[in-house]
Amino acid sequence: MSQAWYLVSRPAGMPTMENFALRDVPASPLAAGEVRIANRWVSVDPYMRGRMNEGKSYVPPYALDAPMEGGAVGEVIESASSDFVPGDKVLHMGGWRDEAVLPATEVEKLPADLGVSDTAWLGMLGLPGFTAWFGLLSIASAKPGDIVFVSAAAGAVGSAVVQIAKAKGMTVIGSAGGPEKCAWVREIGADAVIDYKEEGSLVRKLRTVAPNGIDVYYDNVGGDHLDAAIALSNDHARFAICGMTSIYNGGGATQLRYAPKIIGSRIRIEGFIYSDFEARRPEFLQGMTELLKSGKITTRETIHEGLAAMPDAFIGLFSGGNTGKMLVKI
Amino acid sequence: MSQAWYLVSRPAGMPTMENFALRDVPASPLAAGEVRIANRWVSVDPYMRGRMNEGKSYVPPYALDAPMEGGAVGEVIESASSDFVPGDKVLHMGGWRDEAVLPATEVEKLPADLGVSDTAWLGMLGLPGFTAWFGLLSIASAKPGDIVFVSAAAGAVGSAVVQIAKAKGMTVIGSAGGPEKCAWVREIGADAVIDYKEEGSLVRKLRTVAPNGIDVYYDNVGGDHLDAAIALSNDHARFAICGMTSIYNGGGATQLRYAPKIIGSRIRIEGFIYSDFEARRPEFLQGMTELLKSGKITTRETIHEGLAAMPDAFIGLFSGGNTGKMLVKI
Repeated sequence: MSQAWYLVSRPAGMPTMENFALRDVPASPLAAGEVRIANRWVSVDPYMRGRMNEGKSYVPPYALDAPMEGGAVGEVIESASSDFVPGDKVLHMGGWRDEAVLPATEVEKLPADLGVSDTAWLGMLGLPGFTAWFGLLSIASAKPGDIVFVSAAAGAVGSAVVQIAKAKGMTVIGSAGGPEKCAWVREIGADAVIDYKEEGSLVRKLRTVAPNGIDVYYDNVGGDHLDAAIALSNDHARFAICGMTSIYNGGGATQLRYAPKIIGSRIRIEGFIYSDFEARRPEFLQGMTELLKSGKITTRETIHEGLAAMPDAFIGLFSGGNTGKMLVKI
Repeated sequence: MSQAWYLVSRPAGMPTMENFALRDVPASPLAAGEVRIANRWVSVDPYMRGRMNEGKSYVPPYALDAPMEGGAVGEVIESASSDFVPGDKVLHMGGWRDEAVLPATEVEKLPADLGVSDTAWLGMLGLPGFTAWFGLLSIASAKPGDIVFVSAAAGAVGSAVVQIAKAKGMTVIGSAGGPEKCAWVREIGADAVIDYKEEGSLVRKLRTVAPNGIDVYYDNVGGDHLDAAIALSNDHARFAICGMTSIYNGGGATQLRYAPKIIGSRIRIEGFIYSDFEARRPEFLQGMTELLKSGKITTRETIHEGLAAMPDAFIGLFSGGNTGKMLVKI
């Protein structure tokens, strides 16, 4: 008997255990073209919070009283498709459960010969790496020599941004919460780090480490970080707005005290979603694989054990619970 | 004896008469290469408020106890330059005074044969028209078929945006304050108008007239209008951030309740300054002159009489004192 996490009520603000229920899923035979996958790694990502809300968004909301979805890596254990045989390692969106039954067309076989870990497909080679890559290089048009500021720099996306930027010859300033995370962000290459949890104004902290201003801001959190980035922007700075974790669970309006500087410094602020870049996935895979193999990218994971721990892992994303990619091992 | 307006103290919030002093300027002989101009029309524009503050901005601040600058149209009355003779009509930045002495290199002769009014050079063919043109067509990449929202639509820049957009085949929604201005905005071609002074939420008002959302927002005011534009944005909407008159005189932080939609709708928000487009002035002059001649652009002016009235005219820009271009006739 397999199990899956159901969304049973929509969170108001920060999600709690009461919003989720782990339910048995009756076994059913495969239809033609389907595969059965035993999940080994399931991913929790901040964007999932948006899918827990009702209403139109760029991805459809999770249905109530149905299993949730998310990135997962597993092993095919039964196949009714000529494209897969038992033992194949695969990447797919049937996460939040220990066993997934999916049409083969929605499942991607992992290349065996790349010499990267299975979990990389949920991290640096997965959604976080992909989002970091195109946000930095395409949306923010970051180029060698730029001074790049990135928030949530110890997170899955942020730590990818730090390292891609360094590998491409940029100066990087990261923001993270607490001395341990800040030390790690410096370890993976950031030229300077600010601890947003330390007392004092974010603008003043950023000014101290960015005496020459910033050219690029990669935003994962919104709110005060966005305002501070505007305050320190050089002329024609470019902002890639990837996430606003500071307000996904409520917290009111974004307060921009430095808004007029958007004009004065001719700042370009642009939101984006990874799926807009699907067609350019091969370009990303090649570039990121090269960086991984060359050792220029270090990965780090925060791992929770067992499907039962999944809501805790997810909620931890919003309370600083992870350094690097947050994963659940099944 | 000529006179000029001096900035004698920096305004805190809304400027008052106490910040300005009208002083006699002793006559001095022309140096080689200079011209003396009797100003006929002097311009007041919202951007001047920024120059009254201390500190770094995209244009240097006005010096204290010195004559202010600004756009002006006048007539050469004395020339020590071979490029000008008395009687030449000219455009220059020696405003805020009745007589200007300038190097000929800083003075532009008005083409005599265009068949446009002298004041057009401070309006549709001047800074406001120029700013409207490149903000709409270049920064916001507006194209035929787009639904364009423009704030301060009865102002000098806004009324230019409305008419350029209509002439180029866009649908236009304007925002203005009060029934009279709203009626005029509809008269010059807007498909719909909202009165921001009427009771009720700006988001709800905009939703009513933009049931299919907006593709472009031309921002002259910032604040609630910016937030409402984000709320109603279609995917890949483009915002040209030209001005934030709602906060030039204080008023606290910009509150964006809909900030996360910058991501969901992949909005591009970009600030700009007219001077970034100086090199493309010929393209603008040709396009705008054609529109003026074809009758597709209506101009309207709010005129104060006499140099003494200039601070009042300027302050009026921030309290809804003008419909169309605000000018002072000398």
